[in-house]
Amino acid sequence: MSVGQSIPRVDAWEKVSGRAKYTDDLVDRNVLVARILHSTIANGLVKKIDPGEAEKMPGVVKILTCFDVPDFPFPTAGHPWSTNPAHWDPMDRRLLNKRVRLYGDDIAAVVAEDEVAAARALRAIRVEYEEYPVLLSPEDAMKEGAPLLHGECPNNILKHTTVEDGNFEEAVKEEGLIFFEGVYETPIVQHCHIETAVSWAYMESGRIVVVASTQIPHIIRRIVAQALGIPWGRVRIIKPYIGGGFGNKQDSLYEPLNAFLCTQVGGRPVKLELSREELFSGTRVRHGEKIHLKTWLRPDGRLVARSYTAFSNQGAYGSHGHGIAAKGTNVFRQLYRDEKARRLDISTVYTNTATAGAMRGYGTPQAVFAIESHMEDIARKLGMDPLEFRFLNVMPPGFVDAFTGNVNYFDSFRQCVEKGKARIKWDEKRERYRNQTGPVRRGIGVSLFWYNTAVWPISIEISSCRMTLNQDGSVQVQLGETEIGQGADTVYTQMTAETLGIPWQKVYVTSVQDTDITPFGTGAYGSRQTYVGGAAIHKAATMLREKILRRAAEYTHTSPARLDIAGGNIVNTEFGGRKLVSLEELATDTLYHEEHAEHLTAETTAQVKSNAFSLGCAFAEVEVDIPLGKIKLLSLVNCHDCGRLINPKTAEGQVHGGQSMAIGFGMFERLIYDPKTGKLLNDNLLDYKLPTILDHPRLDVEFVENPEPTSAYGTKALGEPPTVPGAAAIRNAVLNATGVGINKIPLTPHVLFEEFRAAGLI
Amino acid sequence: MSVGQSIPRVDAWEKVSGRAKYTDDLVDRNVLVARILHSTIANGLVKKIDPGEAEKMPGVVKILTCFDVPDFPFPTAGHPWSTNPAHWDPMDRRLLNKRVRLYGDDIAAVVAEDEVAAARALRAIRVEYEEYPVLLSPEDAMKEGAPLLHGECPNNILKHTTVEDGNFEEAVKEEGLIFFEGVYETPIVQHCHIETAVSWAYMESGRIVVVASTQIPHIIRRIVAQALGIPWGRVRIIKPYIGGGFGNKQDSLYEPLNAFLCTQVGGRPVKLELSREELFSGTRVRHGEKIHLKTWLRPDGRLVARSYTAFSNQGAYGSHGHGIAAKGTNVFRQLYRDEKARRLDISTVYTNTATAGAMRGYGTPQAVFAIESHMEDIARKLGMDPLEFRFLNVMPPGFVDAFTGNVNYFDSFRQCVEKGKARIKWDEKRERYRNQTGPVRRGIGVSLFWYNTAVWPISIEISSCRMTLNQDGSVQVQLGETEIGQGADTVYTQMTAETLGIPWQKVYVTSVQDTDITPFGTGAYGSRQTYVGGAAIHKAATMLREKILRRAAEYTHTSPARLDIAGGNIVNTEFGGRKLVSLEELATDTLYHEEHAEHLTAETTAQVKSNAFSLGCAFAEVEVDIPLGKIKLLSLVNCHDCGRLINPKTAEGQVHGGQSMAIGFGMFERLIYDPKTGKLLNDNLLDYKLPTILDHPRLDVEFVENPEPTSAYGTKALGEPPTVPGAAAIRNAVLNATGVGINKIPLTPHVLFEEFRAAGLI
Repeated sequence: MSVGQSIPRVDAWEKVSGRAKYTDDLVDRNVLVARILHSTIANGLVKKIDPGEAEKMPGVVKILTCFDVPDFPFPTAGHPWSTNPAHWDPMDRRLLNKRVRLYGDDIAAVVAEDEVAAARALRAIRVEYEEYPVLLSPEDAMKEGAPLLHGECPNNILKHTTVEDGNFEEAVKEEGLIFFEGVYETPIVQHCHIETAVSWAYMESGRIVVVASTQIPHIIRRIVAQALGIPWGRVRIIKPYIGGGFGNKQDSLYEPLNAFLCTQVGGRPVKLELSREELFSGTRVRHGEKIHLKTWLRPDGRLVARSYTAFSNQGAYGSHGHGIAAKGTNVFRQLYRDEKARRLDISTVYTNTATAGAMRGYGTPQAVFAIESHMEDIARKLGMDPLEFRFLNVMPPGFVDAFTGNVNYFDSFRQCVEKGKARIKWDEKRERYRNQTGPVRRGIGVSLFWYNTAVWPISIEISSCRMTLNQDGSVQVQLGETEIGQGADTVYTQMTAETLGIPWQKVYVTSVQDTDITPFGTGAYGSRQTYVGGAAIHKAATMLREKILRRAAEYTHTSPARLDIAGGNIVNTEFGGRKLVSLEELATDTLYHEEHAEHLTAETTAQVKSNAFSLGCAFAEVEVDIPLGKIKLLSLVNCHDCGRLINPKTAEGQVHGGQSMAIGFGMFERLIYDPKTGKLLNDNLLDYKLPTILDHPRLDVEFVENPEPTSAYGTKALGEPPTVPGAAAIRNAVLNATGVGINKIPLTPHVLFEEFRAAGLI
Repeated sequence: MSVGQSIPRVDAWEKVSGRAKYTDDLVDRNVLVARILHSTIANGLVKKIDPGEAEKMPGVVKILTCFDVPDFPFPTAGHPWSTNPAHWDPMDRRLLNKRVRLYGDDIAAVVAEDEVAAARALRAIRVEYEEYPVLLSPEDAMKEGAPLLHGECPNNILKHTTVEDGNFEEAVKEEGLIFFEGVYETPIVQHCHIETAVSWAYMESGRIVVVASTQIPHIIRRIVAQALGIPWGRVRIIKPYIGGGFGNKQDSLYEPLNAFLCTQVGGRPVKLELSREELFSGTRVRHGEKIHLKTWLRPDGRLVARSYTAFSNQGAYGSHGHGIAAKGTNVFRQLYRDEKARRLDISTVYTNTATAGAMRGYGTPQAVFAIESHMEDIARKLGMDPLEFRFLNVMPPGFVDAFTGNVNYFDSFRQCVEKGKARIKWDEKRERYRNQTGPVRRGIGVSLFWYNTAVWPISIEISSCRMTLNQDGSVQVQLGETEIGQGADTVYTQMTAETLGIPWQKVYVTSVQDTDITPFGTGAYGSRQTYVGGAAIHKAATMLREKILRRAAEYTHTSPARLDIAGGNIVNTEFGGRKLVSLEELATDTLYHEEHAEHLTAETTAQVKSNAFSLGCAFAEVEVDIPLGKIKLLSLVNCHDCGRLINPKTAEGQVHGGQSMAIGFGMFERLIYDPKTGKLLNDNLLDYKLPTILDHPRLDVEFVENPEPTSAYGTKALGEPPTVPGAAAIRNAVLNATGVGINKIPLTPHVLFEEFRAAGLI
């Protein structure tokens, strides 16, 4: 049994010893260096660029400006392609931009022999702009008369949708309803992966090859081809180990520009690596959202009707666009049931801030912060126990989502909450913290959440896998799904070993994806890796297993029905699993057979048409120093039902990372823009306050293991969920401690001080 | 129709522009350098090695001697493994050798930070030897009392075999037979590929990866594992473009040692690149052979019985061993028919010269030189026309080889000879050169030959191929068979395009083999690439085509029986090939289909159980300056029936290369050893006289295209055959010019002067 064991990560030695090869480690020894010239205005037009002086500088190979790039608008979001144009992501990108839409927009690029020459050249390029007012918030951008960032979007609204479930107008007229409302605001934050955006490109026999730090090699292939206007098959993407992505690399970042620059220097290898500063402004961020919730409920706590109005700050370019705000509404619609009706109204709005895209949680951290803050406030005002109030309304076991057909098979919410309560000593502490006074107080809070596993039916969900049998009975495995630090290769190793009946040490997952040879899979996002990739592994391993047993039947003169593979041997199931022949001997015989030699391999595509509810909760305990406006996080307990655990240890690691990100989101992080110039002021890891180890309590993790029936190995989402509930739990703990419910995160001293003063505590 | 067109080589641009990546181009930037310490005696024992001083030198990382290596004897010959030990190649190799068997044997190795440190360290290592007499020829080595190179082989005979067809003793008693005999001697020559032997190795997650310039990556994987005593699946071989091999790289050269050294420095990357001098003495050479032919025939020219006795100089280690001498006997047995009987007696003998292994032609250049010199001599002495004499006895159309079942389907010998005669103006020149006198004379000669395609039934013949369909209707192709400069990737491109019905520009063959992911194939040797690789391509492409048409039937609502792929489109065959949908549209729809998405791929193994006769002839015209002992080659015409030509231009290129090698073999090249020390005296390209462009006439090529019925694309061997007949044709032209038949090549002035003097011409 390989599944369920905490085997060491298969890439552990490589990574801790520094031997693992990342994009930059593989760079061609003759590589040229590209650097980007960024705009020094946030909104406007490039009227003229003069690269004359720069072009003459030694070491400068080529300078290309926004006036030199082809006009193939392309999308950047890392979604599988759709043959239905209605499902296409916004195609509002060019390789370089004349129309400047954020401070730091890409307006020209230098290719040089080295970094120094490139940097010197950048400084020598002269630019003339026409400047427009800076629009940093959806409110500003939607104002009448505001300059349009993308001509085709009136009022800078990328997309606006409304949904009504039931008869809302009728529902709210019910007699005796209690009404609540609240406005919740979340910050723009960045992923802050260690390895910045980096790629290098070269041409090979008329095709373009890009080695890139990406979560989605097969998708990047398509986007590069779209951006360059060439057939998709003429692009090859190679993805080595990557130093984190968290969704930022579920977008095409600079791979298309890198590819284009390479084509402009005769196919010589060109590297394009962003600095940390460029990464902050030039890649993706989490959408800042403002969410307005209204709730009508009965005095007994039963929700009758609610509305959800949100403005999502898209920043300069489309990227994943409206999908993020939409994902938030899914949480709203399914986490709690309204007895009669719901109304949703969401707008995604272009502004002059960094382009918002995918980030771990994909819109749900924002929505859950709003919803779970709101639910807490209501319970408090009704004088109900906050968990009791939630369970009165939460998605029940047996719930079926009419749209996706997903079923909530288990009573996971209750199981998770019970485990979490015990771990954090909920009852005892709620009691202890009841009547505090004084400047320093403690509190405890909770937040539920759910998250989908994979993205069907918004996009197709497919994954292909190929397995090949080596002569020694070991197996090579290839998938389009990507190891991005989350441990995918390790659990794939375990899954393969499990289904094939061989020791995990004999499974070799090919970690590098190469679109020329790697079976098609869409990559790491949507917490889909174990769910969809697992389906592909199960299907391929089953195919390979059948092929092996067919050969084994011939070799051992035994009916295939009596054969199995166990411990790397062919065994007869009828005689207590007696070993008949080792898989090594069989594999060697099969490959070199004089009569019917065969390299046993299996390759197949799995398509998944469900997206299991992965759910759970977080509990937080805080100590609040009211006069200082400081929160000390004492404890954070996450409890997840992500189905069956393939590797408990790496699962725990995933939760730790997500908890940390939730702490940053709830307490520390946000991008700060200069309101006049639109310049990002904290575009580095000194000024952008990521939580450090000193800001972390012990991170506690509990699991409830209900094997998911729709999943090949019983798994469901765990990659993103740990990020989702933390901020609301912390916020609710502060409320519990101080009586002040703060609707805007991060809960920095600046915010707390104002709020505590307004509440009369200071 | 892609097949039959002279499309440009798919790797042409990469190679002429210098962009193609060879092993050394890919080397890790932190690579360590390994260098080998070679023995300075040719036969003996290492008694002691003192690396003490060397180990202390700066930059030296590790020194390993013949006393430090594991004792896993391994074979080096590039044959597929066999589950039958009787088919195993000699396992007489160790990574480093205490028992020194040639001057320059590998006795220690240094791993250092750079070349300079390694070279310095080599000079500082002290060695003590026990020395034995030097054995440079089979005669010396077989002498009673000669020291044994490999204990288990008495008289240093690696193998000795005899065969008798018919009753030989009876046959030669027939009344009235005429008897002829001759002894023919061929030199030891080297392949002289441009890229020397080079590899670099590193460890990855406990596995060993070797990037190597090899013709046989999947076989090298097995040999490295054997040499290191580890499971085969823990070895990964990557083969980039290579700068020639010609059979030398159908052997494991230094990959096992490189791998071992890497394991001894904690898996850090280590490069091992041979100098040209090391390449000459430390890699493989062509077996020097001495062949004694005896012939009994009737006065009308009909062969009745013949005998073939050969001694093949194996050099220091087993490598391909007896296979080379044995292959020569195949030519002897089948090129001409003996009416009654044949006797063969061949010995392969270890000596203290460079290890002989595979080289283009694999024993047949030696045998054909002997046989065709002998036939010419007989015809001349009988006063018969040499071609008429040959056709009286040559393998006839319809001939079936009892051992292999191969059929000589066509009258190719006659067709080739007719074409060749016309091209070189045979009749006119034979007439013109009839009665020459004076010091400078011209002559014209011929030689027939045949060669097998691939190696069944000596080894299994399998090849696997994987194809994947891209969204734009282009196709990726992977095979274990290797591009080694011969143009394999180009003809594979054409074959794939042909069977799939798409333009060749939409076929992308993955040139790099990587044993972790490349379907199993045994590599480039035995002129098997188009024949066996072609079978795999045909099978895989047919599978993929069927999958495509099945999807096309659904997509177009048309019976699959009416569908075909042509010009990259799905067409309806019933309406004059009317286009229904482009393959691009179909591929995209298939991959992203909401109901049944699939990455269309096909992978399969083809096994071939025939090895078609590839045959033809060469004609040479020479001008001989008798007093100077110099030959000027005026013309060399090769005419081949290699079946259907996939790419006439690259086929012609193959023949040109083979002709050039034949010129070197016949006129210029041989390794010269110091008889006292056994040191190779001309181990560099200055002293080893490769023919240069000035030594070449215009090389003429003719083809006869009889599509081979056993071949997927009608092809048969062309890689090696062009090397085979040239030397005998040149020798016979010299005979025609001067009346002197010289039985020892190369025909250098040293040889010619002696022969002409003996013949009374000088």
